[in-house]
Amino acid sequence: MQQTFKPISYQDHELRILNQTKLPTIEQYENYRDYFDMVDAIRHLKVRGAPLLGVMTAYGISVTLNNSGIKSMDEMVEYYKKIRQEFYQTRPTARNLSYALQRLDRIVFTGKYQEVIQLQSAIKEEALAIHREDKQACLDMAKNAYEKLFYKKDHYNFISHCNAGSLATGGIGTSLGVIKYLHHMGKSVHVYVDETRPLLQGSRLTAWELSKNRIPYTVITDSMAGMIMSKYEIDAVLVGADRIAANGDSANKIGTLPLSIIARHFNVPFYVVAPHTTFDLTLKEGGEIPIEKRSEREVIRFMDIETAPLRSATENYAFDVTPYQLITGIVTEKGIYSMPLNQK
Amino acid sequence: MQQTFKPISYQDHELRILNQTKLPTIEQYENYRDYFDMVDAIRHLKVRGAPLLGVMTAYGISVTLNNSGIKSMDEMVEYYKKIRQEFYQTRPTARNLSYALQRLDRIVFTGKYQEVIQLQSAIKEEALAIHREDKQACLDMAKNAYEKLFYKKDHYNFISHCNAGSLATGGIGTSLGVIKYLHHMGKSVHVYVDETRPLLQGSRLTAWELSKNRIPYTVITDSMAGMIMSKYEIDAVLVGADRIAANGDSANKIGTLPLSIIARHFNVPFYVVAPHTTFDLTLKEGGEIPIEKRSEREVIRFMDIETAPLRSATENYAFDVTPYQLITGIVTEKGIYSMPLNQK
Repeated sequence: MQQTFKPISYQDHELRILNQTKLPTIEQYENYRDYFDMVDAIRHLKVRGAPLLGVMTAYGISVTLNNSGIKSMDEMVEYYKKIRQEFYQTRPTARNLSYALQRLDRIVFTGKYQEVIQLQSAIKEEALAIHREDKQACLDMAKNAYEKLFYKKDHYNFISHCNAGSLATGGIGTSLGVIKYLHHMGKSVHVYVDETRPLLQGSRLTAWELSKNRIPYTVITDSMAGMIMSKYEIDAVLVGADRIAANGDSANKIGTLPLSIIARHFNVPFYVVAPHTTFDLTLKEGGEIPIEKRSEREVIRFMDIETAPLRSATENYAFDVTPYQLITGIVTEKGIYSMPLNQK
Repeated sequence: MQQTFKPISYQDHELRILNQTKLPTIEQYENYRDYFDMVDAIRHLKVRGAPLLGVMTAYGISVTLNNSGIKSMDEMVEYYKKIRQEFYQTRPTARNLSYALQRLDRIVFTGKYQEVIQLQSAIKEEALAIHREDKQACLDMAKNAYEKLFYKKDHYNFISHCNAGSLATGGIGTSLGVIKYLHHMGKSVHVYVDETRPLLQGSRLTAWELSKNRIPYTVITDSMAGMIMSKYEIDAVLVGADRIAANGDSANKIGTLPLSIIARHFNVPFYVVAPHTTFDLTLKEGGEIPIEKRSEREVIRFMDIETAPLRSATENYAFDVTPYQLITGIVTEKGIYSMPLNQK
């Protein structure tokens, strides 16, 4: 399965990213050499998607350390501590981001490396491994879904929410990866793409990825999913996740919870597709997942257009939590879990 | 209860309307003298809301006939037939529009009037009556809701969808009228305003009306209603209706059906507020209600900004149907009906 674009490319001293805020109209790549700009890019969602944020964080720290000019180990460790905090604070809900930091922490804080150049090299290898593993996990999730869930029929209709494809991961994607893999294996698929307000990751990003892959889709407003499920034979709702608690409760882009309720109402299977790096087993249940609140401007302005009276109050939770009871199963690279999650 | 703006003002030879597509940023009034421009204004949603479309249609026909210069009765009746069809075809779902036409039909086709000037005068009186009755119905609906549903507590939290206020009726509104009346009677209220994609009648119009009335509100994306209901104590979801079938199934702005499903999931009462002119007892159930499909551009463009790849397929149903099983009650000017609707 070929990729037609690279959301992120690593070189020792430079990180190249596809600026996702410009899609679908402009395909603009940007180069970064310093953590400060990278953190800013994450905050502004130029790069987003929990697994990709893990990859970006690892690569970003590697590039920043490589460019630091620091020669002493102590100084390097202090600098690492500072910048890992900067990355950590960007997006509080995305579990894979802190997972990547934990992996790097283990490299930095073991005291195994005596030389700066050794540490830089070990961090680079770890970052590459995180990317490689995420890419493989995407493929394995897709295969699991294909072999165990979507093998019987020739045609499948799905509803997607937000973007959980190549633009959100180090590989073909989580839930969108499943769809792309089915298409690749010769299945006929059609995707009803929730536009995903307020930032339209569905109509801007998922639709763009699907069009690049020549997979048929229909863009709908989030509010149309109910009618679509009442009117058409939908085989499953497929979504990604930003963090999954020990019982299976899953945080994902705002709008996922209502979608799961509507799916249950119409007896449509509802699957979360996510790698193990998304699980946070230190949290018993979804209520403990920190939920990012973003700028009110995202809701009461659309691009640069005012969509509500000035000084309107808004709430802008970026994620909601779907309780495990509303999830049919969680597709991972190791298998498909039924609910409540059986902890391994 | 004072109105701070007039969505529609009738004079014998001119109709003045507030162009709702420009709100909330611009308060622009436009004058119309001919059915052709009026029909165009309705199609482009400069005036919208089922009850207001009834008022607009009656006034619009009156003004057009007054300006026609036609002197013979036969010619006038023929002209009426032509323009009533033009209005009829604008918005197929709105029941109150065809209700207004039926009222005018009775005037025109009885043969009671021999003179053009008599007919013009009778149509004017009928149009004024339709407006007056709708205004009174709004007030009576609000009183019924206040006296029978929302009298116990000092503070109420509501979720609203689309706009069912003064901008949608000849009076204070249907569901938004209830909220304004509670506020007027000294209750503390807070409204979570669904923005209502694709055309944002919630964030643009409902928020504007609420701000004009100094009623506290919070604008949310449609996808946030699930989280709001899970997080806060919501007393009721209040919506209007564009057409109600004999069993109580109600067509309303797209997104109403999922809202009703989510409300049921969280045990939040879900009320439809609509005058009797919205009922279509010739239809047994909601599946028979004609659902308007609108331009795909509304979904894949936002104002003039592309939000999805060019040539993306979309579906743009303007309404969905909420089955009576998901409706707690229908508030009308004559009383509050429980479900299934008891036909009187």
